[in-house]
Amino acid sequence: MWMTVLCSSNMADLWQNAMDHAVAIARKAGEVVREALGDDRKVTLKSSSVDLVTQTDQQVEKLIIQSVKDKFPTHRFIGEESVAAGEACDLTDSPTWIIDPIDGTTNFVHAFPFVAVSIGFSVNKQMEFGVVYSCLEDKMFTARRGKGAFCNGEPLQVSNQKDIEQSIIATEFGSSRDPDTVDKIFSSLRNILCIPVHGVRSAGSAAINMCLVASGCVDAYYEIGIHVWDIAAGALIVSEAGGVLMDVEGGGVDLLSRRIIAANSRTIAERVVKEIDAFSPPRDDLPPSKV
Amino acid sequence: MWMTVLCSSNMADLWQNAMDHAVAIARKAGEVVREALGDDRKVTLKSSSVDLVTQTDQQVEKLIIQSVKDKFPTHRFIGEESVAAGEACDLTDSPTWIIDPIDGTTNFVHAFPFVAVSIGFSVNKQMEFGVVYSCLEDKMFTARRGKGAFCNGEPLQVSNQKDIEQSIIATEFGSSRDPDTVDKIFSSLRNILCIPVHGVRSAGSAAINMCLVASGCVDAYYEIGIHVWDIAAGALIVSEAGGVLMDVEGGGVDLLSRRIIAANSRTIAERVVKEIDAFSPPRDDLPPSKV
Repeated sequence: MWMTVLCSSNMADLWQNAMDHAVAIARKAGEVVREALGDDRKVTLKSSSVDLVTQTDQQVEKLIIQSVKDKFPTHRFIGEESVAAGEACDLTDSPTWIIDPIDGTTNFVHAFPFVAVSIGFSVNKQMEFGVVYSCLEDKMFTARRGKGAFCNGEPLQVSNQKDIEQSIIATEFGSSRDPDTVDKIFSSLRNILCIPVHGVRSAGSAAINMCLVASGCVDAYYEIGIHVWDIAAGALIVSEAGGVLMDVEGGGVDLLSRRIIAANSRTIAERVVKEIDAFSPPRDDLPPSKV
Repeated sequence: MWMTVLCSSNMADLWQNAMDHAVAIARKAGEVVREALGDDRKVTLKSSSVDLVTQTDQQVEKLIIQSVKDKFPTHRFIGEESVAAGEACDLTDSPTWIIDPIDGTTNFVHAFPFVAVSIGFSVNKQMEFGVVYSCLEDKMFTARRGKGAFCNGEPLQVSNQKDIEQSIIATEFGSSRDPDTVDKIFSSLRNILCIPVHGVRSAGSAAINMCLVASGCVDAYYEIGIHVWDIAAGALIVSEAGGVLMDVEGGGVDLLSRRIIAANSRTIAERVVKEIDAFSPPRDDLPPSKV
């Protein structure tokens, strides 16, 4: 009997060690982020004048990757800053850590209170766990596949709102200021607002927007232009809290496609699909020369 | 010497008793709001299908007004729910408490984390103190005229950002879904976004947006359509944190005009003015028959 329990527990906990490590390192990374708020936050630019990165983003990503490599030397990584530095964004069947060291870098630069460390973990291209630490709020969101989603240990459940007109929707304006892209973002936003819905909110962090869906505070979040590291952990947290993920044109979500709807239900997600003026940014897994 | 000190202290503290009472009653009101989050929040509608009110708004306003009346029987009131129930919105020279029992009612209905109790106090049409209690974050923002602004006792200071392109801006979509109004809101928003700025955020509470300006997390907040009870307390908090208030077409702010820019500096406020497609909703102090 004892052996049976042990064996079953080992099966179930195949990735529990990795998840425990992710929670511990996310908390440590959050401390570094909070401390850096007291310093001058030197900003450099990435894809545009409003796509920001700081030394803290790079420092925190190195901290997380080094700590994981020490413990799980065969695992692979997709990290926002490593990809920005030229590494490939390949999601293979291997155990892969998908890391955004600071989701909401613009918020971090301004000390706006929604700043998250996001760590997702995928095996056979399936998310096994997701950890999002909202470090200024001190909220640790976690989900393990098949085992539910939690915030600071309390179970999460999406809202049960089925009426889009009673819903609150989260989205972001993104970091592109290209006029055609802005046209489409504004067209979708206006359609959604005038359904009408109760309101639209922009918190400035994809990972936290998804945790707000999982917590039942927001009925749907959609965005085009995000990256796999922004949403990998949050996607599992939403699913495990009872929510659904959908592409912005309907159908299954592809985490590398840079498009997502995360909603409390299929009903609300499908209603949002109808209002979105969709477009397709270059995929995350395109070789840099093709972007 | 002792008499001199006492006398000077009495002069300075003319309204300190009232402010101490405001802080205490805001905290108590916040407890009621937090407790109500565990209950069913029955929603009724006001000016439109997305202008919400709950029993808790009405209950909290009554609690605050009764408690102030017991202590300061000659003072006057402007309260969001009292005005909705038909009382006049008169700002006279008399000591007047300007109350929003729940700023961010839509957030409250959805348990979105920005919900505030806002209490401003005006004498001779000048704000003497402002108290904004962000009750889910447990942050007590306070300001006394000439004495600075504070959050949980720590002094607040607006940001020193003078470059609009390095700024983060807060605004809201409001509760009107009238197409002409929505046109103007979207036109302003697009102009602002494409200056370009670092980002635009919508937290869903005017009072908290103003406290974010006072805290230096947001460089400017603007909105057309808000009411005096949404902004009276926040306006003093911004001024006392070193910020400026301006009308959306420039010039001095009129708290009853339903239009405001609250910014870290005159430079940023004047830059925002240039991008706003202004309009004038019916003033707060129009008799109901003229609205």
